[in-house]
Amino acid sequence: MATIISTLKESGDENRVAITPDVTKKLVHNKFQVLIEKGAGDSASFSDQAYIDAGGEVVSRDEALEKANLIAVINQPDEATRSKIKAGQILIGLLGALIDTDAIQQLAKQQVTALSFELLPRTISRAQSMDVLSSQASIAGYKAALVAADTFKRYFPMMITAAGTAKPAKVLVLGTGVAGLQAIGTAKRLGAIVSGYDVRPASRGEVESLGAQFLTSSINAVGEGGYARQLSADEQKQQQEELIGFIKQNDIVITTAQVPGKKPPLLVPQAAIDVAKPGSVFVDLAASDLGGNVAGSKPDQTVKTDSGAQIIGAGNLASELATSASEMFAKNVQAVINDLADKEAKLNIDLEDEVMSQLVATDHGEIISNRLRAALNLPAKQSAKQEATTDEGNQSTDKGDQ
Amino acid sequence: MATIISTLKESGDENRVAITPDVTKKLVHNKFQVLIEKGAGDSASFSDQAYIDAGGEVVSRDEALEKANLIAVINQPDEATRSKIKAGQILIGLLGALIDTDAIQQLAKQQVTALSFELLPRTISRAQSMDVLSSQASIAGYKAALVAADTFKRYFPMMITAAGTAKPAKVLVLGTGVAGLQAIGTAKRLGAIVSGYDVRPASRGEVESLGAQFLTSSINAVGEGGYARQLSADEQKQQQEELIGFIKQNDIVITTAQVPGKKPPLLVPQAAIDVAKPGSVFVDLAASDLGGNVAGSKPDQTVKTDSGAQIIGAGNLASELATSASEMFAKNVQAVINDLADKEAKLNIDLEDEVMSQLVATDHGEIISNRLRAALNLPAKQSAKQEATTDEGNQSTDKGDQ
Repeated sequence: MATIISTLKESGDENRVAITPDVTKKLVHNKFQVLIEKGAGDSASFSDQAYIDAGGEVVSRDEALEKANLIAVINQPDEATRSKIKAGQILIGLLGALIDTDAIQQLAKQQVTALSFELLPRTISRAQSMDVLSSQASIAGYKAALVAADTFKRYFPMMITAAGTAKPAKVLVLGTGVAGLQAIGTAKRLGAIVSGYDVRPASRGEVESLGAQFLTSSINAVGEGGYARQLSADEQKQQQEELIGFIKQNDIVITTAQVPGKKPPLLVPQAAIDVAKPGSVFVDLAASDLGGNVAGSKPDQTVKTDSGAQIIGAGNLASELATSASEMFAKNVQAVINDLADKEAKLNIDLEDEVMSQLVATDHGEIISNRLRAALNLPAKQSAKQEATTDEGNQSTDKGDQ
Repeated sequence: MATIISTLKESGDENRVAITPDVTKKLVHNKFQVLIEKGAGDSASFSDQAYIDAGGEVVSRDEALEKANLIAVINQPDEATRSKIKAGQILIGLLGALIDTDAIQQLAKQQVTALSFELLPRTISRAQSMDVLSSQASIAGYKAALVAADTFKRYFPMMITAAGTAKPAKVLVLGTGVAGLQAIGTAKRLGAIVSGYDVRPASRGEVESLGAQFLTSSINAVGEGGYARQLSADEQKQQQEELIGFIKQNDIVITTAQVPGKKPPLLVPQAAIDVAKPGSVFVDLAASDLGGNVAGSKPDQTVKTDSGAQIIGAGNLASELATSASEMFAKNVQAVINDLADKEAKLNIDLEDEVMSQLVATDHGEIISNRLRAALNLPAKQSAKQEATTDEGNQSTDKGDQ
């Protein structure tokens, strides 16, 4: 019997889908059977017919859950759905392992094998084709620049007309990880004057290669071993005042300092909002129920300030570019499946593998990932391979940018 | 006593304002007094304080109307406001002279001197700095590409990532006047594959200079003297089928064939909508109460089709980029004021002048513009200068693109 890959229709405002018709076609070619919950691709502009044309089968949610060997999702399913996943089935997606620990423990209790993309060791080169955080951050950065341009009431590019010249917009991007660099690149494409701010001096080269100005703190925050060191209260205050000075010279500020599972750092304090030019636009990619990078930002809402600025809470922009985002996500899922599958398209999880020992949150009722074990106050598992790479993995997420 | 320039707060969804703080400053420098209705600039991010800082005075609507020598507006004011404008006062704006002939005749009866930008002889080089249709069309074209990119659920640019490559979006712009060229340029900036369609073969050079592919009809529609000739029914059908062929190869279609005061031509028939790819986006810059370029488009609404496409009725996009649009509009108004003013900042209208004889809709109770007289079935006025340029003026608007 063929191994069955299922995908579900996401709930709420989520427009993405974890498996696309293109990836369906490739999986079927590789001898998998693919089941799609009816309507799963609708919000991402993939019709049921497109999946059928690609060799998939459109079924009910219950059938997709019942028959699957592996269930691919974007977000952690709701409790009713989760309770139907059985021992030995594999669940993969952005399961929020480090935040929604209750859900992960429920899955462990049900003996589900849960792979949570937040746990992926992102710096291992074999894992890069599986890196959902990176592919979705790239989408979010692109979309952030578009949303800013479409909200701003002035041109981004300089315009020279018969009646006179319009000045280009000034865009500042805070945090120059994947999302930040993509936002910088897109704002540059649109003709704005762009600068990128990061506390890591090493980002200078990437920012400047996109034609943007690099801004950083005058305080060297690099401590022993290359890690960020704790700043004193005075140093923090000085750093924030420098940043406010940068912010108020710009029309658009895009903030990208999202740390999965943690409260995002406040980069734009109320004092900076108060001195913003009328018409300024702030796009906060970290806006979430845990808070955001911009004072007063609210998830999925646009707040108008007394000073005439707009603050866009944009914590899930990837969902708005649902077709491209799903295509990238599905390719990442496919890379994991390729990695797990043998020649007969059977899925085997090697918990000694340097990638899987970290990506797997739970297996056979046990919590596997040492990052998750630490979050749950469990002792670390003694796997040499996992130990060797955990630090690197942490370093890449601790830098605090998408 | 100084000559007084007033501007009013626009009504309805209009965000623009006809005079900006920058232009206020220049007018004050040129010895004019400038009155701004309270809150007139709010929706374009110009505060009352910014006008005061520029040397203007913020007053009530009644005071702005009562004291003005010249009243600058974006759109034709409502009847209540219009009835307060007195004999000898000058009113300038997009007064819709060729559509709202009742309003113009009311102004004529009140002996108001009404200058309607739709009547400007656009091909006279002295008039180009006054060309509101052009400056606002340029804004609309830029914004159309942004709206399309922000609505489309895929990337515009090609993206090469660890998980694979995303194809660039394909954008087709119908009509390559000012708006069309700006839409082409902006979509190119964003990295899309862009083509521009126009029945005028002479547009090829402009389209290709922007790096886009030029598409045209295989039917030569150029008749005697360079004017468009009437096509036969068979020729029209062939032309439309060619166009449907172009449309269905694209993800995004932006239509720009707006003819001030006339029903816009239908460029995208229902047959083209029916075969559009799921996720396709149509942006109709001609969407109005008179109809649009795209079958089923509705003014200021987004219509989702059964085939999974979206049709955006975008007849007043300039208003959404209100700050830049107002800046350009105000510079155009200022160019007219400069043209009318003598060294003592007194306004004198020379009805024998080749520009003013056409821009002026009514003066001292008489209909002046021969285009407007023709629309009202009045005999043409025998002004040699006006006659010499009317044909050219008509040609530039008859080409059917913004």
